[in-house]
Amino acid sequence: VKDVAPLSSTERTTLQRFPQRGRSARELLHEILDSALLCVLTGVVDGSPHAIPMVYGRTGETLYFHGSPENQVFVAGTSGGEVCACVVNLYGLVLANSLYHHSVVARGAMIYGPLQVVSNPEERLAALRASADQLVPGRGEALPDPTEEQLARTMVVALPLGEASVKIFEGPPGGDEADYELDIWAGVLPLVQTWGTPSNDPKLRSGIGVPEHVTRMVGKHAS
Amino acid sequence: VKDVAPLSSTERTTLQRFPQRGRSARELLHEILDSALLCVLTGVVDGSPHAIPMVYGRTGETLYFHGSPENQVFVAGTSGGEVCACVVNLYGLVLANSLYHHSVVARGAMIYGPLQVVSNPEERLAALRASADQLVPGRGEALPDPTEEQLARTMVVALPLGEASVKIFEGPPGGDEADYELDIWAGVLPLVQTWGTPSNDPKLRSGIGVPEHVTRMVGKHAS
Repeated sequence: VKDVAPLSSTERTTLQRFPQRGRSARELLHEILDSALLCVLTGVVDGSPHAIPMVYGRTGETLYFHGSPENQVFVAGTSGGEVCACVVNLYGLVLANSLYHHSVVARGAMIYGPLQVVSNPEERLAALRASADQLVPGRGEALPDPTEEQLARTMVVALPLGEASVKIFEGPPGGDEADYELDIWAGVLPLVQTWGTPSNDPKLRSGIGVPEHVTRMVGKHAS
Repeated sequence: VKDVAPLSSTERTTLQRFPQRGRSARELLHEILDSALLCVLTGVVDGSPHAIPMVYGRTGETLYFHGSPENQVFVAGTSGGEVCACVVNLYGLVLANSLYHHSVVARGAMIYGPLQVVSNPEERLAALRASADQLVPGRGEALPDPTEEQLARTMVVALPLGEASVKIFEGPPGGDEADYELDIWAGVLPLVQTWGTPSNDPKLRSGIGVPEHVTRMVGKHAS
């Protein structure tokens, strides 16, 4: 970890071992959240952590999640407990010339707090659209409102970006001086993520083409 | 979630809403863990979940993590609490013709339990090598043992693959029948992850070439 920017002053978002560097932590938090696709949402269930990978959407200073009302982390986070939303974007591997200094090139964000049940119908719809847009920009507005039955099956929860921290893991390795006297290569191996060619849902009626908001993703870098 | 394979019979690894399908869950667990690069490790700190992205290594039925002895999740997981290790590999986006059915193509693994401090010097070294090999196969044996000072700064912990579950998120979207009457495209957008061209550590002495265990990664699919 080369840089940590706490966005709040609680102990868990102010990492003890690395000082804050000068940059806009709030902008960085938004950037990391907007470029990720999945979040690991964790709650405390029966005294132990319980993690669920989730899609999500961001609107302003709020993260939205949706799923089954039986989702154990939703239940834990809306009945007095807190959750932790963790997002990590991986960009490469930091291959040091010592085992000790091996690491990754990555950016992560952690957000803490209780979940709020979203009951306002417009906010619920906006949250679902934001989650589709998080996957593919423009997807949300291309789709009709869910049916009443689909909405009835869906719980929407909000997590304000109040207590949060971001972590930046970077190269180059920065090994100990003695390590560089060894005949061992050190460097960074980048991970390249791009969008491939879309495939049709086999149940799709013929004559429905891939929309522009999807075709413009193809070949583009992801995250 | 199209398929869930619980590997144990506790409530948190036996998802209520999706039945187990017939496949070797243990092999699948190993496959998911071996193809991932990062893990989100969560413990309970002051009654709330606290997540830290970590590199890790697997040896047989054990996951190893290493880091600072001050790592709050290590402390929580070795002093009576449990941790949850969550790994997710993302392969694409499931773009349904309804907001409700949007999802991802992904495989995830969750492992639960207390952490064990690893004090045996050989097991500690093997754990560090397994973690380097997790990033780049063959990297572990290419490196010398860490110095005594590096080892003294490092806490190594083990998480047995005892209580675990795997989740598989798949396409095609599988929307509701009525959704397919709409003129809206549905399908899967694949995410392609490949290794790029390595860059040297600027502090590397000249004449040290990129080793074969790194060059053979270039252009290969990641995870």
